[in-house]
Amino acid sequence: MTLTLFAAPGSCAVAPVIALCEAGADFDVHVVDYRVNEQRSDAFLAVNPKGRTPVLATDQGVLTENPAILAWIAQTFPTAKLAPPVDNVWAFARLQAFNAWICSTLHPSFAHILRPMRYADGEAHQAEVRRKGIELVDEAFSMAENDLFEGPWAMGDHYSVADPYLHVMTRWLPRAAELRQVDAYPKLAEHFARMRERPAVIEAHARLGMPAP
Amino acid sequence: MTLTLFAAPGSCAVAPVIALCEAGADFDVHVVDYRVNEQRSDAFLAVNPKGRTPVLATDQGVLTENPAILAWIAQTFPTAKLAPPVDNVWAFARLQAFNAWICSTLHPSFAHILRPMRYADGEAHQAEVRRKGIELVDEAFSMAENDLFEGPWAMGDHYSVADPYLHVMTRWLPRAAELRQVDAYPKLAEHFARMRERPAVIEAHARLGMPAP
Repeated sequence: MTLTLFAAPGSCAVAPVIALCEAGADFDVHVVDYRVNEQRSDAFLAVNPKGRTPVLATDQGVLTENPAILAWIAQTFPTAKLAPPVDNVWAFARLQAFNAWICSTLHPSFAHILRPMRYADGEAHQAEVRRKGIELVDEAFSMAENDLFEGPWAMGDHYSVADPYLHVMTRWLPRAAELRQVDAYPKLAEHFARMRERPAVIEAHARLGMPAP
Repeated sequence: MTLTLFAAPGSCAVAPVIALCEAGADFDVHVVDYRVNEQRSDAFLAVNPKGRTPVLATDQGVLTENPAILAWIAQTFPTAKLAPPVDNVWAFARLQAFNAWICSTLHPSFAHILRPMRYADGEAHQAEVRRKGIELVDEAFSMAENDLFEGPWAMGDHYSVADPYLHVMTRWLPRAAELRQVDAYPKLAEHFARMRERPAVIEAHARLGMPAP
């Protein structure tokens, strides 16, 4: 099986790179350079018309969206135990709920801070969208800390593909100085510190040419 | 098994009500009244601290987020064939990618039109967020029509839990007159018309006290 993960360094695509490293998968990384808008190039749009990463290219076709890619990795490499077994429908659904919340709520909230031009034209409007984004991300992390994160891993006793996805989001906090930083969330801070030391996380950063986590 | 679906009429929670009807499941509907902010009441927040619907209460606990709830319904009632079987990891991942795109991109784009106060304070800023939301929803439906929808059902030859989720989104188009309406998307228009006639769709609207689809 040939696997290629298209990923922009520092983007949410770091999460499936970590997951593939955790799985011990044999895969190539195609580094997509957002600085030169490679995601809008004809070559990339032919792979993924959404113009975003991550994209996982497999022998069966192309897969997008983190909750789907992460679940596919977990189910394709079951010995790595990155998700509950498929016959545990309830536990798998809870994992999917966590990752769906990141992709539907936490990640879009960050986008209002980091890419306000998506949501408004004009400097004053974008500044307001960014300001409100700070509130949204603070609220989302409070919810993660108080309601969603089970500990010691995102879904409880067992590490899963929810952990690298959460880790990448936590790693974005320093991108806005106005945000409450990770020390404001004791459980998430402890998780963040533990994730940074995992060999798969270190390996994923190296594969993407990123500084050590 | 006791199942209760908490759902606000007209919200994205219509999708899992349709799916439960398709599955022939025995379930109760708890109608959540957004007009009196029931989703912010202490009683509801005790069920779901996110303050949103849908919420599926089961004997095993409470589940949120449409991609997770819809997959759980499909896998718990496998004879209804609302998703590929669990051993078809690839096909299941593609279904999850479609539903993850709705929850991460299409639905939040609508929220900029319907709930701009989430993303900005002040009338002028909210008007700009709403205006940009029109562009985002138009773009998202173009992508659904041209790139994501396989036909005749969302995922191709087989009806799945992607179909009611897409249907609910298409049903929202008339909420903003500036949006391109469904006739601008031939494949989606045909899908919308076919969905409206399904007994499960008609039954779901009745269970929620909504007008016939």
